[in-house]
Amino acid sequence: MMRKYIFVFGALIGVLNLPAQVNDSVMIKKIADDIMLNGKAYDNLYYLCKKIGARLSGSANAQKAVEATARMLKEAGADTVYLQPCMVPHWIRGAKETGYVQSANGKKYNLKLCALGNSVGTGAQGIAAPLVQVQSFDELDRLGAAGVKGKIVFFNMPMNPTYFETFRAYGESGRSRVFGPAKAAQYGAVAVMVRSLASNVDDYPHTGVTVYTDTFSKIPAVAISTNNAEWISSQLNKKIAFTAYLQTNCAMLPDVLSYNVVGEIRGSQLPHAYITVGGHLDSWDLGEGAHDDGAGCVQSIEVIRAIKASGLVPRHTIRAVMFMNEENGGRGGDKYLELALAGKEKHVFAIESDEGGFTPRGFTITASDSQVARLQQYTSLLSNYGTSFIKKGGSGADINELDKAGAVLAGFSPDPQRYFDVHHAAADVFEAVSKRELQLGAVNMTALIYLVDKYGL
Amino acid sequence: MMRKYIFVFGALIGVLNLPAQVNDSVMIKKIADDIMLNGKAYDNLYYLCKKIGARLSGSANAQKAVEATARMLKEAGADTVYLQPCMVPHWIRGAKETGYVQSANGKKYNLKLCALGNSVGTGAQGIAAPLVQVQSFDELDRLGAAGVKGKIVFFNMPMNPTYFETFRAYGESGRSRVFGPAKAAQYGAVAVMVRSLASNVDDYPHTGVTVYTDTFSKIPAVAISTNNAEWISSQLNKKIAFTAYLQTNCAMLPDVLSYNVVGEIRGSQLPHAYITVGGHLDSWDLGEGAHDDGAGCVQSIEVIRAIKASGLVPRHTIRAVMFMNEENGGRGGDKYLELALAGKEKHVFAIESDEGGFTPRGFTITASDSQVARLQQYTSLLSNYGTSFIKKGGSGADINELDKAGAVLAGFSPDPQRYFDVHHAAADVFEAVSKRELQLGAVNMTALIYLVDKYGL
Repeated sequence: MMRKYIFVFGALIGVLNLPAQVNDSVMIKKIADDIMLNGKAYDNLYYLCKKIGARLSGSANAQKAVEATARMLKEAGADTVYLQPCMVPHWIRGAKETGYVQSANGKKYNLKLCALGNSVGTGAQGIAAPLVQVQSFDELDRLGAAGVKGKIVFFNMPMNPTYFETFRAYGESGRSRVFGPAKAAQYGAVAVMVRSLASNVDDYPHTGVTVYTDTFSKIPAVAISTNNAEWISSQLNKKIAFTAYLQTNCAMLPDVLSYNVVGEIRGSQLPHAYITVGGHLDSWDLGEGAHDDGAGCVQSIEVIRAIKASGLVPRHTIRAVMFMNEENGGRGGDKYLELALAGKEKHVFAIESDEGGFTPRGFTITASDSQVARLQQYTSLLSNYGTSFIKKGGSGADINELDKAGAVLAGFSPDPQRYFDVHHAAADVFEAVSKRELQLGAVNMTALIYLVDKYGL
Repeated sequence: MMRKYIFVFGALIGVLNLPAQVNDSVMIKKIADDIMLNGKAYDNLYYLCKKIGARLSGSANAQKAVEATARMLKEAGADTVYLQPCMVPHWIRGAKETGYVQSANGKKYNLKLCALGNSVGTGAQGIAAPLVQVQSFDELDRLGAAGVKGKIVFFNMPMNPTYFETFRAYGESGRSRVFGPAKAAQYGAVAVMVRSLASNVDDYPHTGVTVYTDTFSKIPAVAISTNNAEWISSQLNKKIAFTAYLQTNCAMLPDVLSYNVVGEIRGSQLPHAYITVGGHLDSWDLGEGAHDDGAGCVQSIEVIRAIKASGLVPRHTIRAVMFMNEENGGRGGDKYLELALAGKEKHVFAIESDEGGFTPRGFTITASDSQVARLQQYTSLLSNYGTSFIKKGGSGADINELDKAGAVLAGFSPDPQRYFDVHHAAADVFEAVSKRELQLGAVNMTALIYLVDKYGL
């Protein structure tokens, strides 16, 4: 008889401690059905991409996007919508860049190229100099000033195609774009040409930020298409030498006032404890910022809409945040953190979606092992909607210091195979986004927030 | 001391019974790296799509594809390449179809439409009749002859967008296309118009097979775009009645000789025991048959190439099979089974890839519980390449009776979200396929075959 009582007692503890899986699965299905049937993420993305377009920080389009997403958040049912002013860099590309390489016989080959974000221009006359290829920072160091001074350095560092996780390949090869120009300047290079950071080999140049140092001179920097990079490299392998000519018209103007856009549903029980979900509103100027990161913005707005439409009354205050200036400054994320700390806000949880609007795979979590384990319990509840993992990992550039305000951080991880086909290029347009894939991301984000809001962390 | 011996003995048993995970993970990485770096699947798909194009059974293009894939299999390193003759249906679309709906005020609205595969044509004069919408077979039965006779039936059965598994939605709504025309004919309808089976709402009509019965007359049948279907349905909801006019020029011609294409690597230890991997070579005539099923063909060829390139010497004979006529007859699959049974061939395992060249998710298995459990052990070895499940489920239309020859059956399951955007439509073109996604499918297929070949079933 005793054993029977123990069994019943054990079973009760189990029931009390475990999430109520059945009710939660019903609620999550309700959320998912609403998003798949009535969702506005795809329509909102259409508006951001086709009615506005590229939204580089400081541009007129960025301001239009601030106004548009504030409206979308109101329409989604946010109780309060407000702007967080912040100063942002104002880099402009100017007139379309030109450039070519020229072999000893005088033949010119025009390049598909674009200036790197935040880079200085060449001036109207352009820059011509011998071209020298480097395939690693070590190689640049070996060449040193003797091999580089007065030349244009061609960083040819392809993304490693054997990595399933394309972001790992981007992290490794991306150094060429982010730090390459500053490092080449250290050895006296006059300009830099980087192979576009792209998974595929095609004609699109991919821009993205480069970071100068105060120590060395700022030299002009461009990206060339992967096709161009492959071809130049093959010619260099045949001992054909090139000079290169680059002409770019970009410039950094004085900072301008811009905004994060915030939409809130006030918490019913813990109104001063915050759950943040966001993406970044600014985008590079070559495409429409569809996957990067219109997707994350409209998914975050959709979280608000789906919570309201499903009749949920969240315990915590839920904030959808459109961060400004992720691409070339991070000022919006900095401002959000600054205000959170200044206001002594208690932050519980934050998700960023900034890896594209692709089919969901799961979430990466920055938190203690026990918190990660707690969140991992929810994997099975999300598995019907594409989530196959919740595991330790990074979050997103706009929220990754929000742990200072107490938040457990999460990064939405969609399938990564196509992201770097379009990332920072003219190919990042609305047509590259699948409606179902975009919506399913919002389903998983909303469901995870529902669970965290209900059970805490 | 005794306990120590038991422990050692237990550990040895473990080692002997478990797959040698470390070596296998090294071998699978070698296979994966080779496919991602040196793979030919994408180039071969380009050839099938852009140098040949649509490959409907009985067409000149289908014959070109037979010859091209035979060559590709030889280039991939198959020991033996041969053709399996089989007679196939020869349906032709004829001149482009036209059609419109017309409201009582005489206004005509042209439709985006295409004849359904295997359907009869209307004749040059076309067919005009009042339009009646049905949204389920039950509704058709309720209307009966009184509601349908002499009319054109419009099956408006959208794919359910709330299903994560789009193939489930296709299975449910697909009845309208496959059986709808025969069922409408039973009640005296004069023609049928089906809403395209598509996940998205756009202007592409999606064809696909319809199946007549011998009992009732064969009536012309077309698919209209989902945009057309949504619009007509909205007008009908406003009590606006339509007549419809359809003019199609399709016809079923006498059967013609065609072929399955088979490439083999002869088994080193069990040459008379077969592992089959395949896709279908025929495709609908509106697009290029890129995802359906050029992808499955070139992935199967890639399995052969990767095995040879990785220096593997398989124990069983590995066969890559390009099945002919999956779309509108299934004669190639039937012939392959017929020859397997007639030759008393021992079939161990078969995989079909016919759900598109999208990011891999896993495999579904038709086998006993213990065999499924055995295969499930391999999930972790494949998880670095996208596989998150190996579970009980279907296989593929060309192999699904190969269990009669002893085979455990598997279906490759890529991400299903975009497949029905392009399926059987003009949108199913090379550009809709991601090189990395296509290659990763081949990685998982080759790796699973490597494991099954090594450890048996």
